[in-house]
Amino acid sequence: MNNRKIELFVPAITPFAADLSLDTLRLVAHAKALLAAGAHGLAPFGTTSEANSLSVAERMTALEALVDAGIAPAQLIPGTGCCNAPDTIALSAHATALGCRGVLMLPPFFYKGVSDDGVFDAYAQVIEAVHGIRVYLYHIPQMSGVAITLPLIERLLAAYPGVIAGLKDSSGNWDNTAAVIKAFPQIDTYSASESRIPDNVAAGGAGCISASSNVNPRGIRALIDGLNGPDHVALHEQVSAVRKIFESLPLIPAIKAAVAAQNGDDGFARVRPPFTTTGPHHADAIAEAVRIAGRQW
Amino acid sequence: MNNRKIELFVPAITPFAADLSLDTLRLVAHAKALLAAGAHGLAPFGTTSEANSLSVAERMTALEALVDAGIAPAQLIPGTGCCNAPDTIALSAHATALGCRGVLMLPPFFYKGVSDDGVFDAYAQVIEAVHGIRVYLYHIPQMSGVAITLPLIERLLAAYPGVIAGLKDSSGNWDNTAAVIKAFPQIDTYSASESRIPDNVAAGGAGCISASSNVNPRGIRALIDGLNGPDHVALHEQVSAVRKIFESLPLIPAIKAAVAAQNGDDGFARVRPPFTTTGPHHADAIAEAVRIAGRQW
Repeated sequence: MNNRKIELFVPAITPFAADLSLDTLRLVAHAKALLAAGAHGLAPFGTTSEANSLSVAERMTALEALVDAGIAPAQLIPGTGCCNAPDTIALSAHATALGCRGVLMLPPFFYKGVSDDGVFDAYAQVIEAVHGIRVYLYHIPQMSGVAITLPLIERLLAAYPGVIAGLKDSSGNWDNTAAVIKAFPQIDTYSASESRIPDNVAAGGAGCISASSNVNPRGIRALIDGLNGPDHVALHEQVSAVRKIFESLPLIPAIKAAVAAQNGDDGFARVRPPFTTTGPHHADAIAEAVRIAGRQW
Repeated sequence: MNNRKIELFVPAITPFAADLSLDTLRLVAHAKALLAAGAHGLAPFGTTSEANSLSVAERMTALEALVDAGIAPAQLIPGTGCCNAPDTIALSAHATALGCRGVLMLPPFFYKGVSDDGVFDAYAQVIEAVHGIRVYLYHIPQMSGVAITLPLIERLLAAYPGVIAGLKDSSGNWDNTAAVIKAFPQIDTYSASESRIPDNVAAGGAGCISASSNVNPRGIRALIDGLNGPDHVALHEQVSAVRKIFESLPLIPAIKAAVAAQNGDDGFARVRPPFTTTGPHHADAIAEAVRIAGRQW
């Protein structure tokens, strides 16, 4: 029995202009379209958003553009975790001052093989520095190289019980997600794949924050709303079909190419290095994902 | 036959005050001591320097403190590679404007599994943006997750022949170092371990940039000067003995603890999260490294 509100937060892509500068106009347009299509909120400036290819100033500008456009801060969980603490603190303080629901925080990710003690200290120094902060822990060891382990979560919850609000599990390891949900029912645990929404909800989780929800927000919202309805199998098949296509592609460039196709606007497809845009050999797969997801807007 | 000038560049540690703010006084003192002990130059703000735990402003302040203290910019190869291009460009432009010999540049390191095309684009955009830049490529895949491959070096040298000045190989894979030296004799290739100086020099390399040279600069300089002399075996044994001790310890905290012991100043031992200071069980090993290296200053 899961009495939690089940939600989709979209890790919105960050569009770039032709010179690869930040494109806040397309960002705001895409963000509004996602919310209109049924997303409960946005988790911008995470992995899918190429946040670590942006400067602190760009991230603040982009977040302010979303709020200035009328998106409720309560619907925003921006990513703020950088490899250095001064930047993480600056971004977290900025998001908290804007009234965001919380911040999705990577651990410092340059050094590998660090101890739970060190990662605890890293989170603690940010939490101590930012009054009123609410933290969603971001577990994506295949990129960060630094795992958010269960003992670490336990220590953080004991030290900062009102501050640690949730966790996004992008590890792709369902057993880990299930273990986190079971051990820590007091926080909101999100899966990174919409294919896992039924499992996540059955286990007591809070929903998903999925890269491919940039392309299929309506389908994912329909699944969430229809989990107990007669169409739940078909709804799950739809979201899984879209997800599966992207898993065979260079994920972030392909997501941006699909959003470009949905909008009829190639501008959405641009990526910053070290990414490269998708090639012609990816076009059929991207078109098929768009066909299944539909043109939402 | 190696007609190159063989050099030791020290990746100087970054000291912190009790509140973990940047400690430029101790940084300058340590930097001057290293040069007085025989280092040919410094490669500050790399892995050993906890550079990715510093903000852009802190890195600029620290570099200016070194130059203001009278250290010749021609002796400085500061690290400037961040995961985002705006920060890398800002730091590289700053170092280049100060007249530094070059910059030691990590590739963008958050995303893993990226293509050589994407890494090429990442370097190219910085090179195109910073007039007069000289780049030392930084290959440390066990931390960055992004390798500087031989085909990538070849492409960069073809596109920017006067700009790519060298490479530091921190992979710990001697075969890779040897392959780089052989394929690209026109650039300066540094080993990350002083134990490899004889191999590096015999192959045609340029010397070393080694974490443990913070502790043993005099021994490493003596080895470089004595490579063709009667004591070369004993000199190599001395540097290898120090190196070997650190390889069994948490490297960066142990280096800082050893520098603290050499200076009789615990302040040098402080680290920023996600590191933690060394514990009592490391003390004997650190004392032994200091005993072999000697108190340089």
